[in-house]
Amino acid sequence: MEIQTVVRKRRRDPAQVREVKRRDAGTERTLLSATAELLTEKGNLNFSLAEVGARAGLSTALVQYYFGSKHGLLGALLESSSSGYVAQLNSLMAMDLSALDKLRFHVRGIVKTYTKTPYIDRLLHHLISASDDAGAKRISDYYVKRVVEFYRKLIDQGVREGTMRPIDPMHLYFVLLGTGDHLAARRRLLTPLLGGTAQMDAEFVDEFGNALYDIMCNGVRAL
Amino acid sequence: MEIQTVVRKRRRDPAQVREVKRRDAGTERTLLSATAELLTEKGNLNFSLAEVGARAGLSTALVQYYFGSKHGLLGALLESSSSGYVAQLNSLMAMDLSALDKLRFHVRGIVKTYTKTPYIDRLLHHLISASDDAGAKRISDYYVKRVVEFYRKLIDQGVREGTMRPIDPMHLYFVLLGTGDHLAARRRLLTPLLGGTAQMDAEFVDEFGNALYDIMCNGVRAL
Repeated sequence: MEIQTVVRKRRRDPAQVREVKRRDAGTERTLLSATAELLTEKGNLNFSLAEVGARAGLSTALVQYYFGSKHGLLGALLESSSSGYVAQLNSLMAMDLSALDKLRFHVRGIVKTYTKTPYIDRLLHHLISASDDAGAKRISDYYVKRVVEFYRKLIDQGVREGTMRPIDPMHLYFVLLGTGDHLAARRRLLTPLLGGTAQMDAEFVDEFGNALYDIMCNGVRAL
Repeated sequence: MEIQTVVRKRRRDPAQVREVKRRDAGTERTLLSATAELLTEKGNLNFSLAEVGARAGLSTALVQYYFGSKHGLLGALLESSSSGYVAQLNSLMAMDLSALDKLRFHVRGIVKTYTKTPYIDRLLHHLISASDDAGAKRISDYYVKRVVEFYRKLIDQGVREGTMRPIDPMHLYFVLLGTGDHLAARRRLLTPLLGGTAQMDAEFVDEFGNALYDIMCNGVRAL
């Protein structure tokens, strides 16, 4: 399934496909970037389409033309923000690497994704809550079930290789995604209060990515 | 410092202390329980004092009389919801147990706390964001720095006992509190979508508490 169809599937009738061809990808990216900036700054989803237009230097009507509604805009942002992460999962499982090496790349990918797009988990769960049952199932299958399935295969491989024990993939999901979401949402808030200095993002991804891999690599090892 | 003074300190002038004595602890608990129910159901902090009054079967004016404002109500709820958790930290460090046993009790306490009061992390961080600098520092020192200091002492003890390596306590904070918050916020949403059945809270605390301890116990071990 193409990424672009997961959230916006129902809007793809033939007339709309023709209309999409007349759109400008640069304008769409500008509007999505403005939305991503607003979500990162606010730390919540309480913004209006008018704020997005103002931030992008474009009219509110254009936001409506491109995305239909706030729900459509949020769906498009989820898709564009997580395309790299989803592509990584698809390719990582197929690569000729040990389960521990796959875990290392994946943990680094999580820390990087949440550092770059700290709103992503809140966005995902808002869209699941705000969609009808079929829509919620489609989003959850694509963005949650696929990750849990990746963990299941990863753990199976690690067990075969004698480096992991048979952990529940859902438990690994809660630990890794929870950690990613928490540090993304809280790091900038907590660091100055705790007397530290906020590191640059690239340094943080290196340092915390390595620390989290070390914890998890040992955490899942065969006993 | 008494728990009750952390968030509400500035409101404790002598006139207010006399007034507090005339209040009814049962009414205060009823209002706090109604607020906790609303936060758990909504999964966010978007509620009005009128909703709290209606839920408790009491007038909105009474909510204002007891807590002054929504900020005061949220502060009181944080205090009452986390008193057990904070008391556990205080006593656990002083107990004659190995570092790994302390970690086991603590991890179980986290899973239990977040299962019972899934809103607690969001509440804490809202209050830090919404308070002035001095207030934010006071709340953070009490609810965050104290936990990080507990981790620092726990890891020091584990290193002395030869069972842990010198992990950054802030990293342990992100992993454990992030996991707790994520499972609290997401479990009920995700479980039906993934085809599972939601377990009873007590079963979940046992099962996930043990799994998380196993992961963390190995994750922090001396190499």
